[in-house]
Amino acid sequence: MSKKQVAVGIDIGGTNTAFGYVDRGGHILVEDKLKTSQYDEAEVYVAALYEKIMLAGQKIMDDVEILGFGIGAPMGNINKGTIEYPANLPWKGITPVADIFRKHTDLPVVVTNDANAAAVGEMVYGGARNMKDFVVITLGTGLGSGFVVNGNLMYGHDGFAGELGHTTIRSGPNARECDCGKKGCLETYVSATGLKRTLFKILADSVLPSELRKYSFEQLDAEMIHEAARRGDILAKRAFEHTGQMLGVKLADVVAHTSPEAIFLFGGLAQAKELIFEPARESMEENLLYIYRGKVKLLPSELSSQNAAILGASSLIWSLKESKSRKF
Amino acid sequence: MSKKQVAVGIDIGGTNTAFGYVDRGGHILVEDKLKTSQYDEAEVYVAALYEKIMLAGQKIMDDVEILGFGIGAPMGNINKGTIEYPANLPWKGITPVADIFRKHTDLPVVVTNDANAAAVGEMVYGGARNMKDFVVITLGTGLGSGFVVNGNLMYGHDGFAGELGHTTIRSGPNARECDCGKKGCLETYVSATGLKRTLFKILADSVLPSELRKYSFEQLDAEMIHEAARRGDILAKRAFEHTGQMLGVKLADVVAHTSPEAIFLFGGLAQAKELIFEPARESMEENLLYIYRGKVKLLPSELSSQNAAILGASSLIWSLKESKSRKF
Repeated sequence: MSKKQVAVGIDIGGTNTAFGYVDRGGHILVEDKLKTSQYDEAEVYVAALYEKIMLAGQKIMDDVEILGFGIGAPMGNINKGTIEYPANLPWKGITPVADIFRKHTDLPVVVTNDANAAAVGEMVYGGARNMKDFVVITLGTGLGSGFVVNGNLMYGHDGFAGELGHTTIRSGPNARECDCGKKGCLETYVSATGLKRTLFKILADSVLPSELRKYSFEQLDAEMIHEAARRGDILAKRAFEHTGQMLGVKLADVVAHTSPEAIFLFGGLAQAKELIFEPARESMEENLLYIYRGKVKLLPSELSSQNAAILGASSLIWSLKESKSRKF
Repeated sequence: MSKKQVAVGIDIGGTNTAFGYVDRGGHILVEDKLKTSQYDEAEVYVAALYEKIMLAGQKIMDDVEILGFGIGAPMGNINKGTIEYPANLPWKGITPVADIFRKHTDLPVVVTNDANAAAVGEMVYGGARNMKDFVVITLGTGLGSGFVVNGNLMYGHDGFAGELGHTTIRSGPNARECDCGKKGCLETYVSATGLKRTLFKILADSVLPSELRKYSFEQLDAEMIHEAARRGDILAKRAFEHTGQMLGVKLADVVAHTSPEAIFLFGGLAQAKELIFEPARESMEENLLYIYRGKVKLLPSELSSQNAAILGASSLIWSLKESKSRKF
């Protein structure tokens, strides 16, 4: 019997690194994780990670053929296989993570950022399976984006295309401060954190009651705002409306740049469904140039949110295998 | 002796249609033009145009081999070979200009908008000859843009990628009205018309003297503002600074989207050189996410401005010939 082909998807996060053996259908056969934060040295970390991957795979190793290792990481650079100046990882500066990984294996190793991995994942396993031009927007603590243009991931001249979270949506003295050092970046408004900041502004501006008035900034998170909105809290709902409205304005710009067939929303905030989709869709349509109106689908990601990061990372390997025209 | 290969470049404008026979080096061997506005019927227009092209080519026809016809036109759609709902052409709705053209010839006919043609022209004849990821911004009456991603023109799902002129740069009640029906579009600030509007606002806001205070809105054009700025007129210079500054903000967004190696400025306003480049570069750098700073070149187009539109249109044919991976 021929062995089942699998790709290993690795999701490097600040706290944990999750990985899984994934088949072409997007099923995770085995998965496990490792504490990223315990490893100050990238070499030691990769050695431990590789060992743990091999260990986890032992029980299926006789039945599968590993095709390669796909890695999703913050500030992962697909051109160079590096992680560059990540804010929340233990290794500072530029870490040549693919090269270090290749000391342990001769198989392909592909590195990219989380949002690019999500975009390829959507193309390989998800709702973009028959699309050649689409965008995935990841709404988590920050806002990431991955663009697929004519069937290929757009990585740009230096591998860092798709930093939509740091495009400017507000200018002037009242624009919000961003972690990146700039002001008015999209992700300061449209992300889990942005939603919380917006709610706080609404709590300040309005005199209406809200169940969220009893929480501090530190106590509150997007999930609590989501639940309050579901229960009918007017100000929580208003926070979603504002967030969706600002997202829609920027999505109209995204369409004018790249003219995609669809835009997928992925991640925590996208779970709020129509609370975010409805105002986003309405405001996108309102701000679209007439030639695009009514043409661009705004859809939820079809990747299961629980394993999406592992799926996205593993999809890089299928994508590499299936398209000879792709560079990565 | 073997015949010299040429591509015919056709630039369809509201008033005139200019065309030329162009060799691979970007030399125009013969050129002529036709009054677009005289033809209410697209069929009649194309027949007259084709006849005029053949007539103009008579004296070189024995020495050249025509490879195809490249057409640059407002709202030209590269996927479908159509011109769709142009604001300033005699034919309304959707005109299948490539199909009509093919009634006269079996050679390849490629249609796209002016800015995409300029981008391919820059890649074939100009400063982007060795680049795979770059952007061309055309600054004329409006603002157009063409994106090249991984060596290919990005045309998007429906052929209308690159409408950067209609991304939003200002919102709220004071945002400028755009011809497209929206408010706050980039081209209402950054274009020859945008420069004039900005100057008028500055004339209103400031009490400083200016030689331009004696002209009406209808009398004034970008060239006059340029000349006044060269002569040291403070308010004219300020209009360029504001225009460049706003352009720079949007260029930073463009970089975050596509991570290009270079951005080329093309067209009338780009002729103002450092008057526009300096504030644009400064404001772009200021607004760039740290990972891009100091990496992206902001350059003048290397296409001769006089024939740039014909060159751009003709380049579509060379690009078609030289890249089998290209769809158009």
